[in-house]
Amino acid sequence: MLIKEVPDAECRELLAKASIGRLGCSLDDQPYVVPLCIAYEPGYLYFFSTLGKKIEWMRTNPKVCVQIDDINGRSAWVSVLANGHYQELEEPRFTDERNHARKLLEKQHLWWLNALAERRTQLPDQAITPIFFRMQIDSISGLRGVSEGE
Amino acid sequence: MLIKEVPDAECRELLAKASIGRLGCSLDDQPYVVPLCIAYEPGYLYFFSTLGKKIEWMRTNPKVCVQIDDINGRSAWVSVLANGHYQELEEPRFTDERNHARKLLEKQHLWWLNALAERRTQLPDQAITPIFFRMQIDSISGLRGVSEGE
Repeated sequence: MLIKEVPDAECRELLAKASIGRLGCSLDDQPYVVPLCIAYEPGYLYFFSTLGKKIEWMRTNPKVCVQIDDINGRSAWVSVLANGHYQELEEPRFTDERNHARKLLEKQHLWWLNALAERRTQLPDQAITPIFFRMQIDSISGLRGVSEGE
Repeated sequence: MLIKEVPDAECRELLAKASIGRLGCSLDDQPYVVPLCIAYEPGYLYFFSTLGKKIEWMRTNPKVCVQIDDINGRSAWVSVLANGHYQELEEPRFTDERNHARKLLEKQHLWWLNALAERRTQLPDQAITPIFFRMQIDSISGLRGVSEGE
């Protein structure tokens, strides 16, 4: 098996196709990884989440990364890593961006947003109000495992 | 959908069943996430890798985490996070532990270890000599998405 770099354009295609990414953040050099729904457009990855440890950490240290992969077996895997900075889409400063994020994420993840909204009407708890945020992408790289014969 | 904590014993079962985990490490508070083959036994997760950025980073900052998940759709997902410390199983100090790691990892990942070995005989390059390491687990936690009716 050989490990090859994935061209930049293909990394972006893979990010655009992915619906789940693993978000990495860190505080005091303790890393933290969590799976999240994602939506890509050039320059940005969009997310939503309820308030919790990851949001608190990213507010303190905005350096984040997102890893996606497609692992089908021995020599058929690809992994893409995007590095960037956390931007919380709070209102009113980022109302337009927040609405844009919601529209992008609804295409793939409407059920989840609805679930949060339903839950909110039952239990009016700030902790389950969705927070929209994005990662401003600074760099993207990818690796692929390839059989020797290919 | 409700989000519930996964009991400790079940987190350990899920780690034992998983064959791929996302390893998180960080340097100067820049997080880095990479998918890796894993093998669990109580107290430790075992790995192998070729030399590269993640190994260099973990040698500098041994705080690491491993995230595994099983995401089947709307309300059927579970995610487990283990936090711990990097220990490189270098020889001769950790020869026994290294052999133990190899045996555990061979059960699920023999093809990959063989691929590295084959590649090494073709190109005698230190960079593709596998490095075995383990994470000494300090804490484990897990979350699960559950339909409201369940």
